[in-house]
Amino acid sequence: MGVVVVGSVALDSVKTPFGEVADALGGSAVFFSVAASYFTDVAVVAVVGTDFPQRHIDFLKAKGVNTSGLSVESGETFRWAGAYGYDLNDPDTIETRLNVFEGFRPRIPTGLESSDFVFLANIDPELQLAVLDQVERPRLVACDTMNFWIEGKRDELLETMRRVDVMIMNDSECRELADEPNLVKASRAVLEMGPHTVVVKKGEHGALMATRDLFFSAPAFPCESVFDPTGAGDAFAGGFMGHLARSGDTGAANMRRAVIFGAVLASYCVERFSVDGMSSLEPGDIEGRFKALKEVSDFET
Amino acid sequence: MGVVVVGSVALDSVKTPFGEVADALGGSAVFFSVAASYFTDVAVVAVVGTDFPQRHIDFLKAKGVNTSGLSVESGETFRWAGAYGYDLNDPDTIETRLNVFEGFRPRIPTGLESSDFVFLANIDPELQLAVLDQVERPRLVACDTMNFWIEGKRDELLETMRRVDVMIMNDSECRELADEPNLVKASRAVLEMGPHTVVVKKGEHGALMATRDLFFSAPAFPCESVFDPTGAGDAFAGGFMGHLARSGDTGAANMRRAVIFGAVLASYCVERFSVDGMSSLEPGDIEGRFKALKEVSDFET
Repeated sequence: MGVVVVGSVALDSVKTPFGEVADALGGSAVFFSVAASYFTDVAVVAVVGTDFPQRHIDFLKAKGVNTSGLSVESGETFRWAGAYGYDLNDPDTIETRLNVFEGFRPRIPTGLESSDFVFLANIDPELQLAVLDQVERPRLVACDTMNFWIEGKRDELLETMRRVDVMIMNDSECRELADEPNLVKASRAVLEMGPHTVVVKKGEHGALMATRDLFFSAPAFPCESVFDPTGAGDAFAGGFMGHLARSGDTGAANMRRAVIFGAVLASYCVERFSVDGMSSLEPGDIEGRFKALKEVSDFET
Repeated sequence: MGVVVVGSVALDSVKTPFGEVADALGGSAVFFSVAASYFTDVAVVAVVGTDFPQRHIDFLKAKGVNTSGLSVESGETFRWAGAYGYDLNDPDTIETRLNVFEGFRPRIPTGLESSDFVFLANIDPELQLAVLDQVERPRLVACDTMNFWIEGKRDELLETMRRVDVMIMNDSECRELADEPNLVKASRAVLEMGPHTVVVKKGEHGALMATRDLFFSAPAFPCESVFDPTGAGDAFAGGFMGHLARSGDTGAANMRRAVIFGAVLASYCVERFSVDGMSSLEPGDIEGRFKALKEVSDFET
């Protein structure tokens, strides 16, 4: 089984207290697919401009990513520029130029309509719905979103949510969507909107997964060298969905493992700019941090 | 074995979006000792004024707390008034009247100098040092502090820290003390200051315990009804130290269990005003939430 991701491919200019980078490979679909590529077949559905460097496409292909759904449109690639302070919390967005991404109309390539696992990265919920209309009863659809859509396209987002299995969002988005500061209550409120599972990403504090029956509290890998948090949430989703698609097991115990694999990939992502922290992992690296997270969180009763 | 706590006894007036209470039993030594009373013998060293209601002393005695170190001085009891917003983050302090607490000179009662477990709650580090001068080689000394002392009495605090085994502090205090936004690095920096262990309380995000070898990431109990966070950190410390003193085991595995018992007591504390959420627990309640925290955080490798 494999996974299809629909999202953005971007050229990011990022400044942190530790350095800066210009026009680096970025975008939700990129961070997701590089992370997921360590687990399973991944296909990207996204758009770039004619200025998009061939070496980035070559890199994705070398990671085994199916780029048949990556359309090249005349114009410039989506660009995002942001800066982080020392606390590496939410960045200040310096510039967003949608460019060809503004006219993005996702089309699932022939042969991928029957994909079992689909990730709707953070894009306009109307486009997320358009993707769902093109796929045939996937086993599991996961979806991300952001404050911009929660505030500006709430009805469309709620319609999308009625058709997805898993919401993957960060804690502030979860609280805002539910209009509830208590994260436990907010998670339950999100479940009432449709998904059977919500995974709340909390950055350095790990993640909380809620289903109707149970909560799962996952640690973050204790990273000493957080260099650039850009893309960590999508890398998390890539590890999570990648493991589910690899194993084909969406049972409760395996969903927990998937959250841990998400935390592992996010931890590698933040250690370098762009996808550099995830670009050349060995299978032993991922298993090593998985085991380390067990050691970090285990206790005897 | 038992535990001695040196800290404040106060009358708190607290307002939250869910209600308010005036002159309720509070103070670090109270939250700590009520929590620890479920595990072991506890003795309180603190001061109150002549206005302090006898019923509060009777309550502590009924919980088995040794109040021989609770001195009654002429004047009024320490009063704190604060208000929380909907997010229940740091409260706005409306009023602090130190009253008799201003002249507090802790004296460890005869017979308690040889206590094996000592908790220095958040008081002036000079007083914490004075306590350490009165006790005979305890097995384990834990210490809390706050931004006020980190900023105003840093040298005295550092001197105290060289003589304690475990620092128990919240995440913002840890970052401020170490002048380092990365909590993993900040924890390591605190260890360099003397203690062999630091336990960083992160509220709804659980706790992080760091030693020179290892990190332990503990979940918070997923509380849907957080009513009043006042005292949660001291309740945490009470569960932590109470379990250590009960078991007499300060090995690594048991330190982890102690953190979980801390999280359990904190979770009960926040469900009601004052100590009401912890005032009438049954042993099965505490064990139940301990097991629930195992279920919430466990995953298969």
